[in-house]
Amino acid sequence: MSDYRIEEDTLGAVKIPVDALWGAQTERSRNNFSTGAKMPLEIIKALLQIKKAAAIANKDAKAIDAKKADLIVAAVEKLLVLDDTKLRKDFPLVVYQTGSGTQTNMNVNEVVAHVAQTIDSKIEILPNDDVNHGQSSNDIFPTAMNITAAMAVDKLEESTKHLIDELKRKQIKYWKVVKIGRTHLQDATPLTFGQEVSGWVSMLEHDLSYLQELNKTLAELAMGGTAVGTGLNAAPHFADKIAEQMSQVYDYEFTADTNKFYGLAAHSGLNVVHGAIKTLASDLMKIANDVRFLGSGPRSGYGELNIPANEPGSSIMPGKVNPTQAEAITMAAARVMGNDVTISIAASQGNFEMNVYKPVLINAFLESAELLTGTMYGFADKMIAGLTVNEDRMKELVDRSLMTVTALSPHIGYHESAEIAQQALRAGTTLKVAAIKSGLLTEQQFDKWVVPIDMTNIEEK
Amino acid sequence: MSDYRIEEDTLGAVKIPVDALWGAQTERSRNNFSTGAKMPLEIIKALLQIKKAAAIANKDAKAIDAKKADLIVAAVEKLLVLDDTKLRKDFPLVVYQTGSGTQTNMNVNEVVAHVAQTIDSKIEILPNDDVNHGQSSNDIFPTAMNITAAMAVDKLEESTKHLIDELKRKQIKYWKVVKIGRTHLQDATPLTFGQEVSGWVSMLEHDLSYLQELNKTLAELAMGGTAVGTGLNAAPHFADKIAEQMSQVYDYEFTADTNKFYGLAAHSGLNVVHGAIKTLASDLMKIANDVRFLGSGPRSGYGELNIPANEPGSSIMPGKVNPTQAEAITMAAARVMGNDVTISIAASQGNFEMNVYKPVLINAFLESAELLTGTMYGFADKMIAGLTVNEDRMKELVDRSLMTVTALSPHIGYHESAEIAQQALRAGTTLKVAAIKSGLLTEQQFDKWVVPIDMTNIEEK
Amino acid sequence: MSDYRIEEDTLGAVKIPVDALWGAQTERSRNNFSTGAKMPLEIIKALLQIKKAAAIANKDAKAIDAKKADLIVAAVEKLLVLDDTKLRKDFPLVVYQTGSGTQTNMNVNEVVAHVAQTIDSKIEILPNDDVNHGQSSNDIFPTAMNITAAMAVDKLEESTKHLIDELKRKQIKYWKVVKIGRTHLQDATPLTFGQEVSGWVSMLEHDLSYLQELNKTLAELAMGGTAVGTGLNAAPHFADKIAEQMSQVYDYEFTADTNKFYGLAAHSGLNVVHGAIKTLASDLMKIANDVRFLGSGPRSGYGELNIPANEPGSSIMPGKVNPTQAEAITMAAARVMGNDVTISIAASQGNFEMNVYKPVLINAFLESAELLTGTMYGFADKMIAGLTVNEDRMKELVDRSLMTVTALSPHIGYHESAEIAQQALRAGTTLKVAAIKSGLLTEQQFDKWVVPIDMTNIEEK
Amino acid sequence: MSDYRIEEDTLGAVKIPVDALWGAQTERSRNNFSTGAKMPLEIIKALLQIKKAAAIANKDAKAIDAKKADLIVAAVEKLLVLDDTKLRKDFPLVVYQTGSGTQTNMNVNEVVAHVAQTIDSKIEILPNDDVNHGQSSNDIFPTAMNITAAMAVDKLEESTKHLIDELKRKQIKYWKVVKIGRTHLQDATPLTFGQEVSGWVSMLEHDLSYLQELNKTLAELAMGGTAVGTGLNAAPHFADKIAEQMSQVYDYEFTADTNKFYGLAAHSGLNVVHGAIKTLASDLMKIANDVRFLGSGPRSGYGELNIPANEPGSSIMPGKVNPTQAEAITMAAARVMGNDVTISIAASQGNFEMNVYKPVLINAFLESAELLTGTMYGFADKMIAGLTVNEDRMKELVDRSLMTVTALSPHIGYHESAEIAQQALRAGTTLKVAAIKSGLLTEQQFDKWVVPIDMTNIEEK
Repeated sequence: MSDYRIEEDTLGAVKIPVDALWGAQTERSRNNFSTGAKMPLEIIKALLQIKKAAAIANKDAKAIDAKKADLIVAAVEKLLVLDDTKLRKDFPLVVYQTGSGTQTNMNVNEVVAHVAQTIDSKIEILPNDDVNHGQSSNDIFPTAMNITAAMAVDKLEESTKHLIDELKRKQIKYWKVVKIGRTHLQDATPLTFGQEVSGWVSMLEHDLSYLQELNKTLAELAMGGTAVGTGLNAAPHFADKIAEQMSQVYDYEFTADTNKFYGLAAHSGLNVVHGAIKTLASDLMKIANDVRFLGSGPRSGYGELNIPANEPGSSIMPGKVNPTQAEAITMAAARVMGNDVTISIAASQGNFEMNVYKPVLINAFLESAELLTGTMYGFADKMIAGLTVNEDRMKELVDRSLMTVTALSPHIGYHESAEIAQQALRAGTTLKVAAIKSGLLTEQQFDKWVVPIDMTNIEEK
Repeated sequence: MSDYRIEEDTLGAVKIPVDALWGAQTERSRNNFSTGAKMPLEIIKALLQIKKAAAIANKDAKAIDAKKADLIVAAVEKLLVLDDTKLRKDFPLVVYQTGSGTQTNMNVNEVVAHVAQTIDSKIEILPNDDVNHGQSSNDIFPTAMNITAAMAVDKLEESTKHLIDELKRKQIKYWKVVKIGRTHLQDATPLTFGQEVSGWVSMLEHDLSYLQELNKTLAELAMGGTAVGTGLNAAPHFADKIAEQMSQVYDYEFTADTNKFYGLAAHSGLNVVHGAIKTLASDLMKIANDVRFLGSGPRSGYGELNIPANEPGSSIMPGKVNPTQAEAITMAAARVMGNDVTISIAASQGNFEMNVYKPVLINAFLESAELLTGTMYGFADKMIAGLTVNEDRMKELVDRSLMTVTALSPHIGYHESAEIAQQALRAGTTLKVAAIKSGLLTEQQFDKWVVPIDMTNIEEK
Repeated sequence: MSDYRIEEDTLGAVKIPVDALWGAQTERSRNNFSTGAKMPLEIIKALLQIKKAAAIANKDAKAIDAKKADLIVAAVEKLLVLDDTKLRKDFPLVVYQTGSGTQTNMNVNEVVAHVAQTIDSKIEILPNDDVNHGQSSNDIFPTAMNITAAMAVDKLEESTKHLIDELKRKQIKYWKVVKIGRTHLQDATPLTFGQEVSGWVSMLEHDLSYLQELNKTLAELAMGGTAVGTGLNAAPHFADKIAEQMSQVYDYEFTADTNKFYGLAAHSGLNVVHGAIKTLASDLMKIANDVRFLGSGPRSGYGELNIPANEPGSSIMPGKVNPTQAEAITMAAARVMGNDVTISIAASQGNFEMNVYKPVLINAFLESAELLTGTMYGFADKMIAGLTVNEDRMKELVDRSLMTVTALSPHIGYHESAEIAQQALRAGTTLKVAAIKSGLLTEQQFDKWVVPIDMTNIEEK
Repeated sequence: MSDYRIEEDTLGAVKIPVDALWGAQTERSRNNFSTGAKMPLEIIKALLQIKKAAAIANKDAKAIDAKKADLIVAAVEKLLVLDDTKLRKDFPLVVYQTGSGTQTNMNVNEVVAHVAQTIDSKIEILPNDDVNHGQSSNDIFPTAMNITAAMAVDKLEESTKHLIDELKRKQIKYWKVVKIGRTHLQDATPLTFGQEVSGWVSMLEHDLSYLQELNKTLAELAMGGTAVGTGLNAAPHFADKIAEQMSQVYDYEFTADTNKFYGLAAHSGLNVVHGAIKTLASDLMKIANDVRFLGSGPRSGYGELNIPANEPGSSIMPGKVNPTQAEAITMAAARVMGNDVTISIAASQGNFEMNVYKPVLINAFLESAELLTGTMYGFADKMIAGLTVNEDRMKELVDRSLMTVTALSPHIGYHESAEIAQQALRAGTTLKVAAIKSGLLTEQQFDKWVVPIDMTNIEEK
């Protein structure tokens, strides 16, 4: 039939759509695997960059013919300028394929070889012998994994910083606005809203520092290990040259100086960095929950914060406004916490010289980074930036609170103070009324000792 | 040295504390494994019951000498009457031992043999040939796992029913008490507190039905499969007799009629039942969160529920009361959700004829069941039973709510209704004021259409 | 600018791409949320079916004008015949939006209203008042969740049955082929390969039965609860009629007879069914691992199975064949086990009358079901179907095994048997040589007692 | 009744066992919470150290009477010398109590006060006003959490180093022993066993470095924040003095210089460090699986490693030896991976000024650290130390392997090389026979090109 052409690989002939740029091995994978998400294009792009760098390194080492190398470089460059929709057309394989990513590596080898032929059909470029020269999927694919992960974490750090910046604006603005504290969800001693926000900022600053410290483990590239880590069939110093090239392309300090048996069989780096990402997810869930509970209402909730009205909230309840950005980010956090389990399991299941859970591992990793990056921008720009404080409400709640009784404790003792608080609760009076009635202190003393703003110790900062 | 005696097993001589009832293999395990929790005594007791039943079955089948069988039975009965502290002394092994539980099975075999010798020293009872006759750890240990799991789930079901009963009392009592609804944490249309509780009850009733449906999968016992599932060296119908005996002892319909290769190498039953336990955990987290948020206050929270004062809540804030039972049960839920991952992984890691994650799997399972059983009783008896409703607060919040506007929607449309609600919010008025001001309806119409109790549709029930 | 048109919702004017079928609320969501996967089209289709059924029910109840209802039905039918690529164009929203799925419900309402206008522009159809009549996202979206989940589980069951069928063919074919058993990865007593496969079959049959038992919980639809579960603004028996209609459309016994407060705020059903899906995932990991280890080689592994050569296995090692279908299915299993955590967390985080993790929950659920459905077909058709047994290798391994010594145990005791096995290992002889040398039995006895096929007890089946 | 005494707290009178050292609040907790594990004694000891340090700091600051402070110090010292069994008697509370650990803090306050009274009954020491002076459970308990976690991680690092050391011995010893590589479980190109071990070492070295980098985040102590983070009722510089004292006691650089709102409401530090612990767990699962698979046999497995015979492996199969240490450590790993989920969830569920999942979080953390510490020592000393290599077997497998064909690829191309390997497999010959038969190379060329030790590139190291 005319819509197909025939190509051969080592297992025999394969019918391929006539206009496809890929070859026999890609086509086999396409037929044998069709479930689930497509392989992320970031991985494809990183593999293309590696093919280019390898061609140059192989040319320098005279490991392959210079003209062939130039052709490979030209083909890669032609592919790299395509937009995502066009690029996807040539890279149709899914994540749930062979666990080494070999079929995607061959997809790249075949497409590059094919494009090279369209540039100069007189020089034969073979996918395995030329484009893949000195490489194995086993070292190339984890190299692409670490590169794309490092880039994704870079973006995640940027997004984290952006959210920190937005929060800090609120922290400064509301530094002296006193509000009730809550522990165990029950009324506690007062603090300022600025202090409360500073706790959120500190969480994110901790998380950011974890990412920054750990991210460097992703800089170690498996390149040069080839099939099992020994570097069989790779030219001398091949890996170092590619690492150098990748460092320039991605503006990041990559290195090939790492144990290659580790690099093929283990993904400790991705596992631990994702541990920091799930820590960030946990913290975002806490912060977003705080924001939406403090903004609950408008009439029957805590009502301390006013959240921006971004969309009509309900298809049936007119005039409703919902904390939707908080919902998106907490859903993302739940997803990330699940992805962490996928990654831990995937990382634990290597055998001997290889881990064959590579595609699912990097796919989950990139999804987590992307989800938090995106939802943090949304949360910062469409929730935090527009957040305002309901100062009247905050004051009202502090004024009628009973836990300011804690300020009496150093003067009259814990036990007597508790009596006063309980009495006020039972009688439905203010703390002051109950305190004076107790006969343990005077009105003057009460007014001197129980000063909410003083209880926050904000001057110490 | 006089504090030790010497015993031999197939690997050679071992020094054993002179007064220990166990033998060489237990002692080896004790020396080689000392990390983590002890093997649960429920497992030990189930193994003892199995030894007794096996001795009787072997006697009936004339597979072992009748006197030996009687002695084994006598020894087991002597051990079964011991209290937990005494029993533990003889069963010192930890969970993190061999993954088949062989060492615990041998611990039981050795102690039973030893106790038998103290009853009648003239008849030699061998741990492997006599006490373990017709058995392998590989079929006996998973049998004990399923038995103890089934018993634990039975208790969990009782506890779930108890919590349902306590909640139903509140559901009935407060069936007509109208309160504000909350969706997205934002004010929504009203419902009754009884209705709200009925949702919690329904969650638990669903969870209970899942447990009841799935629990029967635990009734399938691996007994009779011996070493790899083929039943080598087991007497005919041996397994059926033991299943019958176990059914009597535990008052539960156990069966040996199941694929033994499955029974040794897979733990699908424990895995799926724990899936139902984690579903219960998720739901308990939701219910407990609702209770503590609705009871948040006393002056700066939702304040709709009054929670019982079980303990002083704070070491520093006098008079504080906290929802501690809700905290215990949600912590338990978090633990159960983690245990579920442990169990899923453990269940996935069988190889060929065996799964060697048995001890950690059953330990996590029993912990989950016990944690939810215990904390549900606590939550029912010390939180729900003492819960009262703050009707004034509920009425106040409904009266000033804006979302009762939804009742206008069928009459004047969604868009106009939204206008009214938004106007009321901006102006800080009641909904009624804004509605009448809009000119779209009269006061009479408002009073007729916006009746909170009618909006709850409780008559339909 | 001419590429945009202006539409208004209750929050004001919005610029919308001029040719978009959606309206203001969809556009707001599209601008406010752009991270992560798109809302699955199965959900969109289920919502469209619900809109149609609701229009008919509303018409019957005279709740909306008959002509309007007919127009809505016509519009839905026009949309339902579109292929996925075209349908996606009109439903551009992502999963990580508002946690109730309100924006997707409004997307559907707006598109249906818009299409209705294109059919008959004289009758005004309003998204909220007409298309969404008697509905709330809060009851409609979970209804769509349960419907799509039930359909996905149906497919999963079919796929499980298909894999069972393929395995059973091997079970029958190799029922009497004796092979070595392995426990703790160490040589054990023999069984037949058919028996080994029967264990895998039993695992899957258990998993299938769990899905079949639990699946019915998904039949309960939240329809009719509207905003908070009370059914405010829904016509009488509205829900029953829709459930009936959905049952016909999907050929499945749906019901609206369930507690609506549960239906909006809890997802116990999806949680527990996914617990069964993760149980299946655990078991598939075990089975796939067995297959690939038994097929490991061809020269340096267990080598008992010959796996089909579907693709060249390596980009660098010529002639390599890899168990790629096993890799895809175990990667899928790892993903499902992570999704289970996402779902447990999501299900636990409801508050009051709503759970706002709906989109992430159903997205993870559908992904899990789809991944296992697809990879099980691949594993069945491209791995199991082509699997053959290396009988020579199996025989060789049984013949030189030492664990057949277990057959001697009933005759000469466990301890003496162990001696013989250890002696054979030390001396590097066969078991028979060591047994006879021990003087404890004769050659005739050995030949009578140690008969591998007898040790498998296969006649009992 | 004489077995009880009556004590009062702010909620009224409580009956306490007459000889108990604890007071009313401990007794309330004991009655209200009885499910699950006991609070770890490490936490109790850290709290006792804090009480002592606080007394000294309060004395220095003249915040409490010097004699009272001295008495508190004396009481603590009396308690700290008790062994664990005795200490447990006075600290009977469970993990599943109030989520702030308040009841355990009060248990410590009450016991210290009581013991102080036994030393000098003339000076009244009050649990809240004196022992707890300047403290809140809310800052003290997380301080104790971080201290115990830091100590546990220290031990974990020691254990990791020990395992690395044992592995390095094998790496050096077997540096030049060539063996077959395996990728996808299928035969691959050769490497040396030393190289294979170096991959395991590198995994652990990475994991160790993650722990070392992250551990310092645990040095930040919440001390000084008191009730909600503001430091209300704490003496100036109180926290710094305690941090200094803790640094001396524990020989670790603790600091109080951290955001206190973070310190009470978040546990990012414990979360991320546990992320590194689960990474270690994943890697240990990989390493232990490799060891047990390479040691599988003795006659029907890979058979490359000889594992030490630590215990008889089977209760029914005589002479069996199992890789039990590998089983214990992988079970521990499965537990740790579950604990990680518990911790992520716990960390995500803080609200406002507090996280009330503290006890379950620290309990899971300490369990993980302890389990890996203990099982790594066992694995190092009782598995790795006794491991020997079966060089004959390794050589045999390399010699008959087909994947050494990869060495031909640079000379005759990937495609032709694949042909040769496939031909050898089909014909059942050695690679050499097939290679020469192909006519593409001579015997001399084959012998020159295919040299397993050269293919390992070990000289480069």
